[in-house]
Amino acid sequence: MPKVLYAGADSARESYARELTAGFAEAGVAAELVFDAPDPAAIDYIVYAPASGLRDFTPFTNTRAVLSLWAGVETIVGNRTLTQPLTRMVDPGLTEGMREWVTGHVLRHHLGMDAHITGQDGVWRGDRPAPLARHRPVAVLGLGALGTTCARALAGLGFPVTGWSRAPRAVDGVDCRHGVEALAQVLSGAQILVLLLPATPETDGLMNAERLALLPPGAVIVNPGRGSLIDEPALLAALDSGRVGHATLDVFRTEPLPPGHPFWAHPRVTVTPHIASATRPETAARAIVRNISRAERGEPLEHVVDRARGY
Amino acid sequence: MPKVLYAGADSARESYARELTAGFAEAGVAAELVFDAPDPAAIDYIVYAPASGLRDFTPFTNTRAVLSLWAGVETIVGNRTLTQPLTRMVDPGLTEGMREWVTGHVLRHHLGMDAHITGQDGVWRGDRPAPLARHRPVAVLGLGALGTTCARALAGLGFPVTGWSRAPRAVDGVDCRHGVEALAQVLSGAQILVLLLPATPETDGLMNAERLALLPPGAVIVNPGRGSLIDEPALLAALDSGRVGHATLDVFRTEPLPPGHPFWAHPRVTVTPHIASATRPETAARAIVRNISRAERGEPLEHVVDRARGY
Ligand SMILES: NC(=O)c1ccc[n+]([C@@H]2O[C@H](COP(=O)([O-])OP(=O)(O)OC[C@H]3O[C@@H](n4cnc5c(N)ncnc54)[C@H](OP(=O)(O)O)[C@@H]3O)[C@@H](O)[C@H]2O)c1
Ligand SMILES: NC(=O)c1ccc[n+]([C@@H]2O[C@H](COP(=O)([O-])OP(=O)(O)OC[C@H]3O[C@@H](n4cnc5c(N)ncnc54)[C@H](OP(=O)(O)O)[C@@H]3O)[C@@H](O)[C@H]2O)c1
Repeated sequence: MPKVLYAGADSARESYARELTAGFAEAGVAAELVFDAPDPAAIDYIVYAPASGLRDFTPFTNTRAVLSLWAGVETIVGNRTLTQPLTRMVDPGLTEGMREWVTGHVLRHHLGMDAHITGQDGVWRGDRPAPLARHRPVAVLGLGALGTTCARALAGLGFPVTGWSRAPRAVDGVDCRHGVEALAQVLSGAQILVLLLPATPETDGLMNAERLALLPPGAVIVNPGRGSLIDEPALLAALDSGRVGHATLDVFRTEPLPPGHPFWAHPRVTVTPHIASATRPETAARAIVRNISRAERGEPLEHVVDRARGY
Repeated sequence: MPKVLYAGADSARESYARELTAGFAEAGVAAELVFDAPDPAAIDYIVYAPASGLRDFTPFTNTRAVLSLWAGVETIVGNRTLTQPLTRMVDPGLTEGMREWVTGHVLRHHLGMDAHITGQDGVWRGDRPAPLARHRPVAVLGLGALGTTCARALAGLGFPVTGWSRAPRAVDGVDCRHGVEALAQVLSGAQILVLLLPATPETDGLMNAERLALLPPGAVIVNPGRGSLIDEPALLAALDSGRVGHATLDVFRTEPLPPGHPFWAHPRVTVTPHIASATRPETAARAIVRNISRAERGEPLEHVVDRARGY
């Protein structure tokens, strides 16, 4: 009977205990779920989140996989003690939540909603038809589990959408480009730019001063990917000059974002506290169970992280 | 050669002159576009908006149709001097714009965006996962040209959507109900309620105190339909008590909404100045030309208003 160690946040332990137990029963997998490991060599699988504090995987000599509860694995992918296969989270709940957050904030900026939400001054300012979505090009950087669903939803609402990835990808209704040579052209057409790339050495500071300058004047940036994708001083300068019209940022190089950080007070920045989409125990536990079932049947794991690429 | 009188807003005259002329040329219809009518009996078609001030249709003895530039025809449908067939506007631009405004504001409320837009106070309030759209039931009252596209778009984003109309309708992915007996049940399930009904004697004050009380506590109302759909004192009372969580209102019994109206200052109300969606000359002129072409070929007009129903 495989032993599964839950090494996630304490606050989510009860939910995962319930959902994983139900999931194993449903799947007909006889697994024992444990919450500490006095004998690490006895652990077959680790369900992992950074909040657990687990950093040394050396003693887990018989562990067959570490299954991340997070989609972003940048805090663990470079861990030299982790020699076991690592999988990242792909979860319908996470995907749906991101689709909602991204389409919501893109529409918010497209419609210029903030002026109405914050400007209820009794003055009727009619007669300003907003352009249609079909005249508002959007770019989505990253066409993984999350970027793809966002790009497709935005295209479904009428936006002309360009997507960008490392390898060639095809997404219905989306103009897909790939590789670093294509990036300048993707950026130069994007009135709204959505960042859904993982944090890797290659993507670190991707949106630097030079690339920010390629965006059309007044372009809006929506970043639910990772804080490291953006060169912060360069973004602040572009916001100050109005070159970038607004940035809605959910992720930061330091989280929680310190109270004194200039993003909080900047009139062209909206900070959200890493809430774009959460891994949800109800759906995420099923994804974990499915992957452990595969391993138990001797099938290859899904969503294995490529250590060389870093995601 | 049919004579077409433009009787719309002065501000839009130039755009319509250009777009209608181009449209007639494209369609191969030899029509003469005029901007006043010293001899009303010579006018074959009237392209109409209330802003023109035209109220007496009696002298237009040979006019074969009055083609409204607006989707809502409540200001003209009861005009006794108007005995000619009346058509209302169905225009892809108008439809797309409404889909964008409605999905944007529904997502805004679903995600609780206002707290982030107005509350940039340097305090990181993480760890509050929003529910997924699939757990947020939405109702759309009115399944016409506009309600249908909104209902479909919201269902596509994952919301469980209930639609409501007078006659039975079918919309993919939407639970469609009809008739006044079904309304109580539709309202009782709606965490977000979208009003896309026309202003008619039957819909006047539809959302009164009794019906507002059927909504789940804290429900949000989004009204891009018409101001007359809502009993204003009843809504204000429901907002004051928190029974209704928020109202985003684009249309009002009196427009422009007077500066002293309590909606402007109410913390649970967002006023937008009748901008949800505009008739756009580029697309609307084509719809007008298509209808005049039909009439010229002896085919029945599209989108004829039923005077008895009022829409
Ligand atoms: N804010 C939140 O609440 C939240 C929640 C979940 C996830 N996230 C973030 O969202 C990120 C994306 O998640 P996901 O599940 O969609 O990841 P994923 O499936 O691994 O997709 C990553 C995408 O980024 C592309 N990419 C990576 N490096 C690239 C490079 N150097 N140049 C061009 N494209 C590159 C990949 O290209 P290929 O397709 O060619 O491989 C792929 O399309 C996560 O890494 C995480 O940081 C944030
Ligand atoms: N805010 C803005 O910028 C803006 C812009 C354009 C339009 N509008 C408003 O939007 C309204 C809807 O436009 P539309 O083009 O979708 O109109 P439409 O095609 O005529 O559709 C009206 C819908 O309302 C339903 N309905 C009418 N009376 C009803 C009643 N008593 N009980 C139940 N359902 C009833 C109709 O039911 P059936 O399907 O059974 O006939 C139909 O589904 C317009 O009338 C206008 O007031 C606002």
